[in-house]
Amino acid sequence: MRKEYEELLKLYKESFLVEEIAMLLYWDKDVTMPSGGLKQRAEQIAFIAELGHKKKINPRKGDLIKQIQEHPDYENLSDVEKRNVYLIQREYTKLIKVPPEFVGKFQKQCVISTEAWEKAKEEDNFSIFLPEFEKMIEYNKKYAQFLNPIVDPFEVLLDYNEPGMTIEKCDQMFNSLKKTSIPLIEKCLSSSKKPDMSILNRSCSIDIQKKINEEVLELIEFDLERGRLDEYVHPFTIGTYDDVRITTKYTEKEFLSAILSTIHEGGHGSYEQNIRKEGSYQPVGTFCSEGMHEGIARFYENFIGRSSEFWKSYFKRFKELTKDIFADISLDDLILAVNNIKRSAVRTEADELTYNLHIILRYELERELLSGKIEAKDLPQIWNRKMKELIGYEVKNDAEGVLQDIHWSGELMGYFPNYTLGNIFGAQLFAKFKKDSPNWQEELEKGNLKIMINWLKENVLEKGNIYDPFDLVKEVTGEEVSSKYLIDYYEEKFSKIYDLN
Amino acid sequence: MRKEYEELLKLYKESFLVEEIAMLLYWDKDVTMPSGGLKQRAEQIAFIAELGHKKKINPRKGDLIKQIQEHPDYENLSDVEKRNVYLIQREYTKLIKVPPEFVGKFQKQCVISTEAWEKAKEEDNFSIFLPEFEKMIEYNKKYAQFLNPIVDPFEVLLDYNEPGMTIEKCDQMFNSLKKTSIPLIEKCLSSSKKPDMSILNRSCSIDIQKKINEEVLELIEFDLERGRLDEYVHPFTIGTYDDVRITTKYTEKEFLSAILSTIHEGGHGSYEQNIRKEGSYQPVGTFCSEGMHEGIARFYENFIGRSSEFWKSYFKRFKELTKDIFADISLDDLILAVNNIKRSAVRTEADELTYNLHIILRYELERELLSGKIEAKDLPQIWNRKMKELIGYEVKNDAEGVLQDIHWSGELMGYFPNYTLGNIFGAQLFAKFKKDSPNWQEELEKGNLKIMINWLKENVLEKGNIYDPFDLVKEVTGEEVSSKYLIDYYEEKFSKIYDLN
Repeated sequence: MRKEYEELLKLYKESFLVEEIAMLLYWDKDVTMPSGGLKQRAEQIAFIAELGHKKKINPRKGDLIKQIQEHPDYENLSDVEKRNVYLIQREYTKLIKVPPEFVGKFQKQCVISTEAWEKAKEEDNFSIFLPEFEKMIEYNKKYAQFLNPIVDPFEVLLDYNEPGMTIEKCDQMFNSLKKTSIPLIEKCLSSSKKPDMSILNRSCSIDIQKKINEEVLELIEFDLERGRLDEYVHPFTIGTYDDVRITTKYTEKEFLSAILSTIHEGGHGSYEQNIRKEGSYQPVGTFCSEGMHEGIARFYENFIGRSSEFWKSYFKRFKELTKDIFADISLDDLILAVNNIKRSAVRTEADELTYNLHIILRYELERELLSGKIEAKDLPQIWNRKMKELIGYEVKNDAEGVLQDIHWSGELMGYFPNYTLGNIFGAQLFAKFKKDSPNWQEELEKGNLKIMINWLKENVLEKGNIYDPFDLVKEVTGEEVSSKYLIDYYEEKFSKIYDLN
Repeated sequence: MRKEYEELLKLYKESFLVEEIAMLLYWDKDVTMPSGGLKQRAEQIAFIAELGHKKKINPRKGDLIKQIQEHPDYENLSDVEKRNVYLIQREYTKLIKVPPEFVGKFQKQCVISTEAWEKAKEEDNFSIFLPEFEKMIEYNKKYAQFLNPIVDPFEVLLDYNEPGMTIEKCDQMFNSLKKTSIPLIEKCLSSSKKPDMSILNRSCSIDIQKKINEEVLELIEFDLERGRLDEYVHPFTIGTYDDVRITTKYTEKEFLSAILSTIHEGGHGSYEQNIRKEGSYQPVGTFCSEGMHEGIARFYENFIGRSSEFWKSYFKRFKELTKDIFADISLDDLILAVNNIKRSAVRTEADELTYNLHIILRYELERELLSGKIEAKDLPQIWNRKMKELIGYEVKNDAEGVLQDIHWSGELMGYFPNYTLGNIFGAQLFAKFKKDSPNWQEELEKGNLKIMINWLKENVLEKGNIYDPFDLVKEVTGEEVSSKYLIDYYEEKFSKIYDLN
């Protein structure tokens, strides 16, 4: 059986290598490729995607999994080895259920839908996107039915996107978050402490910003010997192990946006750089889940990049590098501006607190779209009404409303909840970190980020994919996943910053 | 049969895409990859190389070729279509003869030999390389025997590296070149005109050099919308069609070296950028041969980069950009320095004229090594003796002697002749260009490189792989390939520059 296990891992490694290669093709397309190369690159990407899919559903895998699991020696496998077999089986049995012709058709539809979405957004005209969006909803339903024909399609997609995620869990966590966030936002907005937002729009040369972002990256211990920092208009992270590449975006009048992007992507990148080495090219040597990846990135972004501790430690140096630009600004002014709460249209530009409401809105709409409770054609009106209800924002047009995100034209539905789930994972882990490190605050204020990063490495990053995400959080914190920690964190943080109560 | 033809082209396209992807993996490794990523990249490259080999010898190709060629409608294929079938067949029948296990073993030996060569060169100790070199000679012989067991192995390797190349042709061309070059070098060296070599070592900031090299690239019409210019210690070109990437090397005290590298690689790059579009992803839509590629690169390097016409047109601008660095230098001083002839050790740093002698030396040694006339262990002494005889250079040590080139540790033997063959192709084409464009000299002196580049595009680059290299030169110039034009070009050029006769 040892032989079959080794062969199975070899087949897994092939899929993994194809994915690494695909990542380089994407990275290069966005960062280094000459513009003329797009058509050629599309051919290469299509080829490698098809190859990757074939490798993943290689029927030999199915045979080997069966032989291993039914073998009398199966119990002699270590827990890690069993986990490897389980994870390969999970992916294989999921993908094998979806007919390749359907995958091909779906992929083509994604290209068409994305084109239609781009045009619709540009022209602020939902009707251009509507017919393709309707098809996408049908494709999503069908996809879910292939995976599991007897369960609610949205439930199936949630679990597909994040193992262990259910409608019940979402409802519970999201409702409590909604109930507490809305009044908290209200309180912050009526506080007498008003952030001076103009601070964030002061001109800061790209050269200075680059220097700051490189320093910050070093502070959070992203290893540039095993990674790169480049620029891209929609920051992203790509790569694994010893070749991890992050991107950020510099705008002269938005220095904070670059710093937060760099820290966020640096968090994603650090996750990949610190995954357990002994499991490289094995399923256990990959990240735990999309939600956990997002959780780590937001851990870095919020608990470092938006924290008063970090800014206290970095303020002097920040003023030094920015020379006279912020000479008249106090640390409190900056922290307040960094944590300004506002009712706004766009998810990706939202503050920490309203961000989750943007997600909850999408979650509720996706669910009703898939169940047929609402129709795609009515979405703009429903979207705008919900934005008013949840966030108190009056949507001006569909481009900043229902058309703002690319997701519904390209990915499986049921992915959005991962973003808020990441916040929930992160807050619960952060609470445990604080409990484990009684002197955390004074250490972070001294600039000792190591104490936090080492805790994360040991407790989460280095564990790779040994546990499913909900189990990992329970293993580390000793408790079931709950939104309680995120809610408490918000209460405490914003009460302090906005002088509430 | 149309169906079979289309399927064959589809299979060819897959190999082609794999090669494009492999090229990106190599380019990124040298230009953008973080240093830590090397081990991972090696895995990716090994995977893609194996995949590429499998795609090339896909047995379905053999079936399709047979079905097409034996079909009664075969004669209805156009000439271009027949050429496509022929070129796929040529590659397939070559590669299918070599057992995959042998290919794998040979590749592994290449890695070991390259490591040994690096160490040997670094420590200036031939004996470290010797045992691996002996194995490489055996592998080369075996490779040749797989391809054709009844013909002289060196003859087989020559044709493998350059279709149509034979020992007889080499002997004829190289001997006449040797006979004329040696006395010509002698004459140049005894001329009263002595280049002031110190000009080439004046400090010129990398920033200024970059500006010059970017301008020169524009002058030779390398399209940066469909390509890139980067830096690498051993300049190379990679890519096809609309994504072609060249590299150059800047050293503060060697401005000319960077310019010549940029023009040389820009020539390689322009070849790829100008290959016929209607044959993209087909064999006819690729470059003609390695020798022709080298011929085009040297055409650019020598007939532009080392020509008095180009420097006459660019001299004013060159002085403008370099400010006071070359204020005291005349155009003649510069042209003489650019064309300095010297007896020197290293092929890649040799002048235009002695360069071929470096190649001929390697050609003669390879031939005798493969026939067993000389033994690997005696090579250093024989090398040094031949360097003295042919080039008049006293080799100081093996690092600058027999160990200088990477080729014998990694590639098939019989490749070196392509470099001089490229010079021969180039000179014959150049002569035809001059005949076709009576006002070529005044146009080039005015800076109108277009006249030359357009001629090249129309007559060579856009023809892709419609003809084998020797046939292409004959088709364009109306004559069989001959070293006569290269010899005449040297006589005329250096007589003028060195005031000979």
